[in-house]
Amino acid sequence: MTSEPSGADEFETIARLLRPLARAPEALGLADDAAAIPSRPGQDLIVSKDAMVAGVHFLAGDPLDLVARKLLRTNLSDLAAKAAEPYGYFLAVAWPQGTGWAERERFAAGLAEDQGRFGLTLLGGDTVSTPGPLTLSATILGWTDSGAMIRRSAARPGDRVLVSGTIGDGWLGLKAARGELGGIIPREAAEWLAGRYRLPEPRLELREVLRARASAAADVSDGLIADAGHIARASGVRLRLDLGRLPVSEPASRWLDRQPDRGPALGALAAGGDDYEIVLTAAPAHARPLIAEAEAAGVALTEIGEAVDGEGTAILFEGRELALGRTGWRHS
Amino acid sequence: MTSEPSGADEFETIARLLRPLARAPEALGLADDAAAIPSRPGQDLIVSKDAMVAGVHFLAGDPLDLVARKLLRTNLSDLAAKAAEPYGYFLAVAWPQGTGWAERERFAAGLAEDQGRFGLTLLGGDTVSTPGPLTLSATILGWTDSGAMIRRSAARPGDRVLVSGTIGDGWLGLKAARGELGGIIPREAAEWLAGRYRLPEPRLELREVLRARASAAADVSDGLIADAGHIARASGVRLRLDLGRLPVSEPASRWLDRQPDRGPALGALAAGGDDYEIVLTAAPAHARPLIAEAEAAGVALTEIGEAVDGEGTAILFEGRELALGRTGWRHS
Repeated sequence: MTSEPSGADEFETIARLLRPLARAPEALGLADDAAAIPSRPGQDLIVSKDAMVAGVHFLAGDPLDLVARKLLRTNLSDLAAKAAEPYGYFLAVAWPQGTGWAERERFAAGLAEDQGRFGLTLLGGDTVSTPGPLTLSATILGWTDSGAMIRRSAARPGDRVLVSGTIGDGWLGLKAARGELGGIIPREAAEWLAGRYRLPEPRLELREVLRARASAAADVSDGLIADAGHIARASGVRLRLDLGRLPVSEPASRWLDRQPDRGPALGALAAGGDDYEIVLTAAPAHARPLIAEAEAAGVALTEIGEAVDGEGTAILFEGRELALGRTGWRHS
Repeated sequence: MTSEPSGADEFETIARLLRPLARAPEALGLADDAAAIPSRPGQDLIVSKDAMVAGVHFLAGDPLDLVARKLLRTNLSDLAAKAAEPYGYFLAVAWPQGTGWAERERFAAGLAEDQGRFGLTLLGGDTVSTPGPLTLSATILGWTDSGAMIRRSAARPGDRVLVSGTIGDGWLGLKAARGELGGIIPREAAEWLAGRYRLPEPRLELREVLRARASAAADVSDGLIADAGHIARASGVRLRLDLGRLPVSEPASRWLDRQPDRGPALGALAAGGDDYEIVLTAAPAHARPLIAEAEAAGVALTEIGEAVDGEGTAILFEGRELALGRTGWRHS
């Protein structure tokens, strides 16, 4: 790990806070410029890199332990969609000038908690200061058997489309965290949704069933419709999604009940981002076993549509196609 | 590659500007959430991650093609110090809101130029927007034979200390780029130094000789004295550096000639950062062959000190130890 010489804090941040998180021998105790990762014959290293900016991807006032955990979880969600086993991560942090020890410690505590929970080790990275907002990047590494990564590109016409968990909680959760749902739904419902936004649940329990039965998969980060669109584009098929089958949480259904027009409201949930569920396709014969095996692994899967010849996505409600003005929720 | 849904620009940036840089099959055309990198039996993957912030690590007005090339080169410098063969990189870019196409194209052109020059491929990453300054992170990957990475931790008492190229140009180059050397040295000298700051030269030609003969190595990013200190700490030895033997460029010597006190002035060059040279240690018998073989590879190596029992660094000039107030140049 190199350290930006912008003050003793960056060196001390590494020595005091980050080195304890780097226990694997290949991290070299963060005492080197690089990590050396031995090849694993018969396996592929699955690598994804995401960035998060305060005020864009999380609220500027969010507690930094939750921010750290969200950073790891959004990256873990990429591994989950690829059916990869979590291994380790590299971290880059640009701290706003003057970020104190208490905040840095809280950030490191969040990393420690979730890297323990999900079997990750810190492998290296960089810590610098910035005149701008807190800016984070993680490069996450996982392993699969050679050639076994689930891709976006192998959906086939006739495949069923399924999604894990519930959809729209991330989008509603951001509204809730901003205090925009007051008077619309009960406070406990809003708090639950805000928690879903702040601390997504990577669906790593789906790894085995994805490996066995999925043709394509992506995690729902940009929004279900946008991420289904990524699969459609990469696979050269059209995905038809039935909003009437969209799985929604109890708190989200409280919000839905207050909306004047259910179809477009479901469309907003399906276009919203930050759910970190998995959208996947599978041959028709696999759909029922998938649902049963995912349930046994503790994750609900719901069939919401199918792949057909064509391109892009078709969004249906009560048998009619909806034309949404925007196909994905935008942060800014 | 995932894309931050902060406007069509981020999707288009990937499609138009970044996809052409990702030609290796394992990048999956940036159409997936992750890259799948096949293991190479008998080899280790060497991974390093650095971050750069506008106004901290480069000047806010620097042309973005040079900024992109500096990002790759500072990361390549880590690979050079580890004697690793460059392979690929993951990129995270947080663009200031409103960054236009011309700037993004110039940035991508810089990436294209240097990834071609140094044999890299873009493998994935993330592109987002920020209300703050341009913030970049690259995760660079290289390969070595198993266990062959040159580490910081294997210097032994009696080893010689050598450094590549010339030292202090990065620190003086930043002054020059800021217009702080006007009237002190000729304009052409200042421009040459500013070029060294803006576009460092990763010493990849040293890979073979490092592999064959070095006991430890680090790249000079934080400053020669600080980076020698990293080797000393990781190896459990003391490094004695003789400032009288410091290799300095002709433009830097013009600056030196104008300084009232040569020892501390040399100390400032040795404490300054951003040289991206290599500081290394080697057993005494290897020192002369190292210099000859490096010269054959086109890189000057200069012996500047030795490793002894103890810890930390000792900075000598004309036989006496200098006590520097600061052991490393600070960006901020």
